[in-house]
Amino acid sequence: MSAPLRKRLFDALDAIVLIDPHTHINALAPASATLADLMGYHYYTELAHSAGMPKARIEEPGLPPKEKVGRIVEKLASLENTIQSSWLIEIAQTFFQFKDEAITKDNWESLYDRATVAMAQPDWTAKVLKRSNLEAVFLTNDFDDPLAGFDTSVYIPCLRTDDLVFHLAQPAVRERLEKATGNSIASTPSLRAAIGKLFQHFVAKGARACAISLPPDFTPTKVSESKATGALEAVWRSGPQVEAEHARDLGHFVFWTLAEFCAEFKLPFDLMIGVNRGVYAEGVYQGRDLYDSRVSLIQYRELFNAFPQVPFPISVLASVTNQELVSYSWIFPNVLTNGHWWYSNTPTYIEHDASARLEAVPSTKQIGYYSDMYKLEFGLPKFAMYKRILAKILAERFVVDRQWTEERAIALGHQVLRGNVERVFFPVPSRC
Amino acid sequence: MSAPLRKRLFDALDAIVLIDPHTHINALAPASATLADLMGYHYYTELAHSAGMPKARIEEPGLPPKEKVGRIVEKLASLENTIQSSWLIEIAQTFFQFKDEAITKDNWESLYDRATVAMAQPDWTAKVLKRSNLEAVFLTNDFDDPLAGFDTSVYIPCLRTDDLVFHLAQPAVRERLEKATGNSIASTPSLRAAIGKLFQHFVAKGARACAISLPPDFTPTKVSESKATGALEAVWRSGPQVEAEHARDLGHFVFWTLAEFCAEFKLPFDLMIGVNRGVYAEGVYQGRDLYDSRVSLIQYRELFNAFPQVPFPISVLASVTNQELVSYSWIFPNVLTNGHWWYSNTPTYIEHDASARLEAVPSTKQIGYYSDMYKLEFGLPKFAMYKRILAKILAERFVVDRQWTEERAIALGHQVLRGNVERVFFPVPSRC
Amino acid sequence: MSAPLRKRLFDALDAIVLIDPHTHINALAPASATLADLMGYHYYTELAHSAGMPKARIEEPGLPPKEKVGRIVEKLASLENTIQSSWLIEIAQTFFQFKDEAITKDNWESLYDRATVAMAQPDWTAKVLKRSNLEAVFLTNDFDDPLAGFDTSVYIPCLRTDDLVFHLAQPAVRERLEKATGNSIASTPSLRAAIGKLFQHFVAKGARACAISLPPDFTPTKVSESKATGALEAVWRSGPQVEAEHARDLGHFVFWTLAEFCAEFKLPFDLMIGVNRGVYAEGVYQGRDLYDSRVSLIQYRELFNAFPQVPFPISVLASVTNQELVSYSWIFPNVLTNGHWWYSNTPTYIEHDASARLEAVPSTKQIGYYSDMYKLEFGLPKFAMYKRILAKILAERFVVDRQWTEERAIALGHQVLRGNVERVFFPVPSRC
Repeated sequence: MSAPLRKRLFDALDAIVLIDPHTHINALAPASATLADLMGYHYYTELAHSAGMPKARIEEPGLPPKEKVGRIVEKLASLENTIQSSWLIEIAQTFFQFKDEAITKDNWESLYDRATVAMAQPDWTAKVLKRSNLEAVFLTNDFDDPLAGFDTSVYIPCLRTDDLVFHLAQPAVRERLEKATGNSIASTPSLRAAIGKLFQHFVAKGARACAISLPPDFTPTKVSESKATGALEAVWRSGPQVEAEHARDLGHFVFWTLAEFCAEFKLPFDLMIGVNRGVYAEGVYQGRDLYDSRVSLIQYRELFNAFPQVPFPISVLASVTNQELVSYSWIFPNVLTNGHWWYSNTPTYIEHDASARLEAVPSTKQIGYYSDMYKLEFGLPKFAMYKRILAKILAERFVVDRQWTEERAIALGHQVLRGNVERVFFPVPSRC
Repeated sequence: MSAPLRKRLFDALDAIVLIDPHTHINALAPASATLADLMGYHYYTELAHSAGMPKARIEEPGLPPKEKVGRIVEKLASLENTIQSSWLIEIAQTFFQFKDEAITKDNWESLYDRATVAMAQPDWTAKVLKRSNLEAVFLTNDFDDPLAGFDTSVYIPCLRTDDLVFHLAQPAVRERLEKATGNSIASTPSLRAAIGKLFQHFVAKGARACAISLPPDFTPTKVSESKATGALEAVWRSGPQVEAEHARDLGHFVFWTLAEFCAEFKLPFDLMIGVNRGVYAEGVYQGRDLYDSRVSLIQYRELFNAFPQVPFPISVLASVTNQELVSYSWIFPNVLTNGHWWYSNTPTYIEHDASARLEAVPSTKQIGYYSDMYKLEFGLPKFAMYKRILAKILAERFVVDRQWTEERAIALGHQVLRGNVERVFFPVPSRC
Repeated sequence: MSAPLRKRLFDALDAIVLIDPHTHINALAPASATLADLMGYHYYTELAHSAGMPKARIEEPGLPPKEKVGRIVEKLASLENTIQSSWLIEIAQTFFQFKDEAITKDNWESLYDRATVAMAQPDWTAKVLKRSNLEAVFLTNDFDDPLAGFDTSVYIPCLRTDDLVFHLAQPAVRERLEKATGNSIASTPSLRAAIGKLFQHFVAKGARACAISLPPDFTPTKVSESKATGALEAVWRSGPQVEAEHARDLGHFVFWTLAEFCAEFKLPFDLMIGVNRGVYAEGVYQGRDLYDSRVSLIQYRELFNAFPQVPFPISVLASVTNQELVSYSWIFPNVLTNGHWWYSNTPTYIEHDASARLEAVPSTKQIGYYSDMYKLEFGLPKFAMYKRILAKILAERFVVDRQWTEERAIALGHQVLRGNVERVFFPVPSRC
């Protein structure tokens, strides 16, 4: 029978201790203090807003956390169908003895209070990590993050570079870069040197990846030193009002330089491809970004050919790009599949996309999942969602369709859940 | 077991009395008179033609209805696999005591004759509506439709605006507009006033939506009054031979004006995105349109931001656009998912697309299905197809995968099948 | 129960004797001589390379076949999850008494030796064909292939035309054409005449199709004789350094001429749409091609309208193009669906794409599958993969969902597996 098989596979996968290879955890405050930290996750605020709650009601300045939760609860009934809502319920049931199937105006307050008590325990963060079978999580650090005050073997630094590639024309970003590196950046050599200092700092602190999110029209290319110099000078002269062409050339130069340093420092370069920022200008915080799914990995052809020594774990925003990701990973040794990102992080798309990867990409090149979470409590339900789908695929497509033994199927699951995170991000010496 | 669960959910969903939010029913002749009205549906003529029947044989002038049916029957064997064929069989079995699995040269005549007798009953239309659990159906009315002679609480007017946006350069369209509104349209203010009169007329007659189908390259934008004026004058001067740029500017002006009146009259604006007209020039009637699936909702960014108060129920022609629709509906409060349109109205695509919607878009923002039918008899099999798929999704993805109770699953099904049609199109006061 | 039903349907489909409508078999050496012929298939070399094996290790000049196999075996563990790996195992189990679930360093040598003995049998090719239920296979012949030395009723010629359309600017290609036709090609009339001679030769030798693979940006159009003449002269003058515009115009002229001769000689024109050649320049042999999935059949609008008498069996490289293929096949009488090509030839995409075709395209217009194989042994596992998926679709979507009898489902399977190959490629007189 299919159901017990799925259950057996899920249980085996669920027992694996994981390293989460991409999150937005704040290492200085990794877990939540109240339910407002959970329900303030943009998924709930943006869905509540989409379902009709005015932005002003959600983002009213000075709103106490409990009242904020009470307000969002008003809209939860419209969102119960969403998988995002199920994450919240699973957290409540797992961590806060919640027994109901939905959070309503009648039960939320007691849940809120129980959660507040639980979260106030001094070992709450450790408990969440342990209960979630999480050994470590990758961070998303600003390039000028001091990376101090936390255990970098549990909270693994990752150099996030969107600001450098896309916002260097903003004086504040330039100032942050100059301050972080102690360099005056007047030329492309000094810019390159400054970026090199960031890599030195991050790698010294145990960083295991460089990462960036990219818009659909981004097509990296190597620009000549002279063109980059002209672009840098124009950007320094004009700031955010600079001509688009110069901003683009400088961005290309920075991006290419990042790839060069990834090669030098042996860091994988996580590319998260396909997001348009600020499409819905009046959206709630972090709820404004959408995309144009007309993007192709052919745009990265020059990059993939130029840096054979750099592993590129790639996330695509839209499921329609997943087949290209499968094919490019099947051909290019340096292209890897990485998780199920954002708008593709829902079961129907995960199942379709993960199935295609599991049957056509070498097993050693697939990083199955990352949580993308802002608060540690979300690791458990998000990974559980993925593991349930992975168990379904392994059951149906490997054990039933291809007559694999369960042991083999579980070994494949282990490899994409845990083995490849080590293989890709902790290559030498082996972490375990 | 899965099958009985699907059956139980289907039976519950099938008991719901529905309002069909988009059809091409002629309110003055809503049901069929002979089987030729059913088998003349473009699905059968275009598929028979695609399978090798010459257009001249299908569209011979003066062909008696019975002979037309006899001819199409010759090709039905090649189409039995299609879901469209199954609609016809389900109609025959439900309404005309048909017992066979296929319509063939040996059984079609008796079926034809039985159907003719049944359809001649004076209460045939009422019987079909009742047997189909349909309380009302939306129409697709030309902008100059008098909307007279029928019960607008059963046949709900909808202002269809393709002609205004795309064909105003045709003198006949301009004349129809001038005649319908009694206005001479010499300027953009008088054009705007004429469009306003259409809205007044339609709303007075109970219209509940404005609608339009759009080609893949359409990117609505607000054009300045002066540019619109220049475009109008050029179009008036040159007619269909006008430069493409002027025709496009005028179309944009009319489209934006429609959106403004939707806001003023509180009408949802149904957008049906992605069709190229006349791709197969020698195709049968209504069987010439195809598409370029390279379209993105990013093209509607300006529109969605400009009209937060207008609900936009959106249909996409290609399944590859569905994830964008899911994501835009999840972020924009005024974007809603609407049915499964035309080339995506087949089970594989419905299942993939509806699953993605049900797990990521607020339940209150999904209009599950419309029939798009030209004759009332098609409501039953088309909705039944959707309800079977919906029952499958609810069974597998909610009851089994997420351990929902059947009651909850059925409530979600009710909301997308019926509740949201009321919520979106009959917002105040509640219809029921 | 579902599994036995799938099994029954598979067994019935598996008993059908097939004609494989597209392969790369060398008619003078159709089967393998050693395991190196099987494991040298680009799927294994490119996946092994993708998994980390240096190209130089795989393609070392003078490498003996046994050592080559030994090297690739080192990487097979990383590829066991792939469906391509399962083809190899199924061959080993079916033809060489292999009992294990994987080929490893411990068992490969005995397998190699057993295979070598089996392949050395004088009737090995006949045995493979018989065991695979293959009656005949289509070839992929260079335009200057003499088509001599083999039985053209078993190895059916097919005129492959990529070189003519895309590489005529290479002097070697022009010389091959002049040599093959005995014509000096100085003008468009002589070029047309030369192409006509190729068709005469191929049809005289029993060719049943003309075929070509096309890049995503290809948009066929009829070019005027004068423009074609100018292009030809420029190409002859400049060779591969010719301006892109002239090369493109000449390619369009040749392509259109091919379609004209397909009409004249009543040959179907297989279009394989969507591949970009040489994307990964340092890839292994045949492992360098990828694609941009942003392609639309709207690009073929002019062609499909211009040649209603030519059947166009169409393969698309990316699953995201499949819905367009379904829709265009549903509308255009001369457009047919053809197999599951290359990067879409994996179970998840086959299932999604074949399901959509089976429910919306006339059953007579679907060519279910071709193997694309280079060596005969691959016919069995590749067709078996397809037949398993076809059995699953027929079981779930026809027998269960639409309550078809098994007989009807099998008849539909027969039609797409065998009947339509005859219907399309052997139309008059009937082959069987």
